[in-house]
Amino acid sequence: MQFPSPVSLPWIAELIQAKLVGNVNAQATGINEIHKVEKGDLVFVDHPKYYTKCLNSAASFIIINKETEVPEGKALLVVDNPFEAYCKIVNHFRPFEPAAKMISDSAVIGEGSFVYPGVFIGNHVRIGSNCIIHPNVSILDHCIIGNNVIIQAGTVIGSDAFYYNTKKDREVWYKKMPSCGRVIIEDDVEIGAGCTIDRGVSHDSIIGKGTKMDNMIHIGHDTVTGKNCLIAAQVGIAGVVTLEDGVTLWGQVGVSKTLTIGANATIYAQSGVGKDTEGGKVYFGSPIEDAKEKMKELVWVKRIPELWEKVMGK
Amino acid sequence: MQFPSPVSLPWIAELIQAKLVGNVNAQATGINEIHKVEKGDLVFVDHPKYYTKCLNSAASFIIINKETEVPEGKALLVVDNPFEAYCKIVNHFRPFEPAAKMISDSAVIGEGSFVYPGVFIGNHVRIGSNCIIHPNVSILDHCIIGNNVIIQAGTVIGSDAFYYNTKKDREVWYKKMPSCGRVIIEDDVEIGAGCTIDRGVSHDSIIGKGTKMDNMIHIGHDTVTGKNCLIAAQVGIAGVVTLEDGVTLWGQVGVSKTLTIGANATIYAQSGVGKDTEGGKVYFGSPIEDAKEKMKELVWVKRIPELWEKVMGK
Amino acid sequence: MQFPSPVSLPWIAELIQAKLVGNVNAQATGINEIHKVEKGDLVFVDHPKYYTKCLNSAASFIIINKETEVPEGKALLVVDNPFEAYCKIVNHFRPFEPAAKMISDSAVIGEGSFVYPGVFIGNHVRIGSNCIIHPNVSILDHCIIGNNVIIQAGTVIGSDAFYYNTKKDREVWYKKMPSCGRVIIEDDVEIGAGCTIDRGVSHDSIIGKGTKMDNMIHIGHDTVTGKNCLIAAQVGIAGVVTLEDGVTLWGQVGVSKTLTIGANATIYAQSGVGKDTEGGKVYFGSPIEDAKEKMKELVWVKRIPELWEKVMGK
Repeated sequence: MQFPSPVSLPWIAELIQAKLVGNVNAQATGINEIHKVEKGDLVFVDHPKYYTKCLNSAASFIIINKETEVPEGKALLVVDNPFEAYCKIVNHFRPFEPAAKMISDSAVIGEGSFVYPGVFIGNHVRIGSNCIIHPNVSILDHCIIGNNVIIQAGTVIGSDAFYYNTKKDREVWYKKMPSCGRVIIEDDVEIGAGCTIDRGVSHDSIIGKGTKMDNMIHIGHDTVTGKNCLIAAQVGIAGVVTLEDGVTLWGQVGVSKTLTIGANATIYAQSGVGKDTEGGKVYFGSPIEDAKEKMKELVWVKRIPELWEKVMGK
Repeated sequence: MQFPSPVSLPWIAELIQAKLVGNVNAQATGINEIHKVEKGDLVFVDHPKYYTKCLNSAASFIIINKETEVPEGKALLVVDNPFEAYCKIVNHFRPFEPAAKMISDSAVIGEGSFVYPGVFIGNHVRIGSNCIIHPNVSILDHCIIGNNVIIQAGTVIGSDAFYYNTKKDREVWYKKMPSCGRVIIEDDVEIGAGCTIDRGVSHDSIIGKGTKMDNMIHIGHDTVTGKNCLIAAQVGIAGVVTLEDGVTLWGQVGVSKTLTIGANATIYAQSGVGKDTEGGKVYFGSPIEDAKEKMKELVWVKRIPELWEKVMGK
Repeated sequence: MQFPSPVSLPWIAELIQAKLVGNVNAQATGINEIHKVEKGDLVFVDHPKYYTKCLNSAASFIIINKETEVPEGKALLVVDNPFEAYCKIVNHFRPFEPAAKMISDSAVIGEGSFVYPGVFIGNHVRIGSNCIIHPNVSILDHCIIGNNVIIQAGTVIGSDAFYYNTKKDREVWYKKMPSCGRVIIEDDVEIGAGCTIDRGVSHDSIIGKGTKMDNMIHIGHDTVTGKNCLIAAQVGIAGVVTLEDGVTLWGQVGVSKTLTIGANATIYAQSGVGKDTEGGKVYFGSPIEDAKEKMKELVWVKRIPELWEKVMGK
């Protein structure tokens, strides 16, 4: 999340009661979770295992639970509980805003767009022109919808990320990370019925221009699809995934988190994608393999009995 | 889609600015996409690869982008862009009708049917008697629900088909085909929560009498199920599929497009059906095989290490 | 379902026109389907195959279609159609109550809880304190939500079970079993967007304290999850399943009915669980196996061609 305007570090240190070390007179321009940090960002780290990664990331200011050497030009904000401090900052800049009506007064809806009855449109939502939003759709706060977008009935845009601070040695195993990112739907996208697109934890989930989605597709937090992707029904994509342009996913495909599928790749139905995947090719299986190789493999398996008989006798 | 009454070909030719060739004084009774054409229908074709199929189909009148020989008794409507012409005709007879209320004034709801709050019922929808429509269901325009039907919460009936005119050599890869077909739910059907049933592109999607569907099932456009089918949760069925009577699909099964599953077939959970499938049998796997054969195969795979050791030594 | 207060057997026999045999002066404290019976319960059985199981179950009073020997201290209610008798009793104590408003007057919502627009809350629902119920959620009659619970948009709590009295030798194959159980969501649970949780057929479906569920998860009737379970998107769990504490299910996992997954088991994405599964281990595959064994198996399959060449020659 970018702040509305740059915020002085000492003010933030005061807010979260942190000891400020390093480049103390700097200004933070935003706050992000480690997977999507940029220069000027605050980030947090609460486990020694990830100290080095965070200190050396693009983020400029690190909320941390141990005073350590400060990288050149950066600053540390030392607190006992970095996760709680992160939440406090996020909640300060993105406080819970109740919604009293189906369509918020702060939402903006472009010319020629038609909103069916039963649609919820949250605070600060912007919808472009010539869109059709079908009945019982929910578009949560801060999401942005482009022009010529169709969202079919019952779909949810901007649900919270499935993302928790996890520690199994305390009473509460899973503490909810507040989701302050947005969902951005670019122009000419169509989203089927009964889909759910999670907002980014701290960055944005983006559906690229001209992409078409069938029904009951789940898109995780901070996931970005390219232009002209084609996603069939019941596909599930986890968080922080990148689909490059022109990717085709057939029905019930599952895509694991934090990976990239290359441009114009095609993944056959019910396949499972578990790692970075080269573009321009066709894949099948769970986990996926080259589709032709996988098909051959299915034939080879059928030859085992013949092989057995030859080697072992009847 | 059948027209409200037969329409003269010259009038249609005028509407789409077509050159009319062949049986020019005929009347069209409807317009359909090639996968569901009948005598009296208009159809369109815009790629030479499909000219022969369309000219020889049951359709009587072909919107085409090349003047060619006219089959006996048929007529051609020659235009530069058959897809745009098709859309123009469909949109003329099935124009977008805005909906101002949760329940349209033109909807008809039968005696003894109960509609919960939060339900959207579109224009020209007909619901039979003794139905229960649970909260936050959306039933889009022109759909027809029989008697004694239960539709559970959040379900969407009559979402648009996932169907595009695709050409990857132009800027807009995917152009939306308008869906002018309907969903017809026959008597004594129960549909679970969070399901989506797409309307036909030009024909009807039909759920047969006595069929029971669990939650979160996706049914594609122009798909027809027989009577007394049993479909478990999270099944996805693509477009133009036929399930004959008494088919049972267990949870998370996926069914590919334009195929038939024979009467009383049973498909085990998580299987993938990719081709026509004979009735009266039990199947498993992705892609499916005879269930018993598949189970044996799973055992054979476990014997590879023993075989390897025998042949290759340790 | 427990009755509001104990009910005399002769009164019930009168209601369903049954012949009462055995301990005729007893009182029934509830009525349950055979899979969840307790002492004091009524149960029904209509097929000789299940007579012994029902007569020897924990249930005290058996609605049955044949007069037979009565187990010590129990009673039989003999009728021609036990299923219809069961339905009559259930419908007497849990009659259909229409809902006229989005939030029922008989619903109780705790302090500090926020309910978005478009939410349906049925009769006799109880929601604890500090909950957030997102737009277009449906919470059906009698369900109970704890404290600090988040339910994201479009989710359905308390849909009816997918449960039918099935006989394929009569005209109506599938007769709906009325669902009189509840859904109970314990404290600190989060449920994602577009989920469906079925109520119990006669008992309760329970989501345990601290459990976190992603989007589009289906939970079947009478299923119980332990504390601190983590369930990723598009998982489907059938009816009468038990997840013990700390179970983790990754995306698109399917779990078959009436089984138990042991504490702290982890099931990898797209796996299928078909039988009782020991806790504390990691599983993969459809059907599941030990994850490491399954991974090795995937490698073994790739060695078949080499084995073939060695044995069979080219």
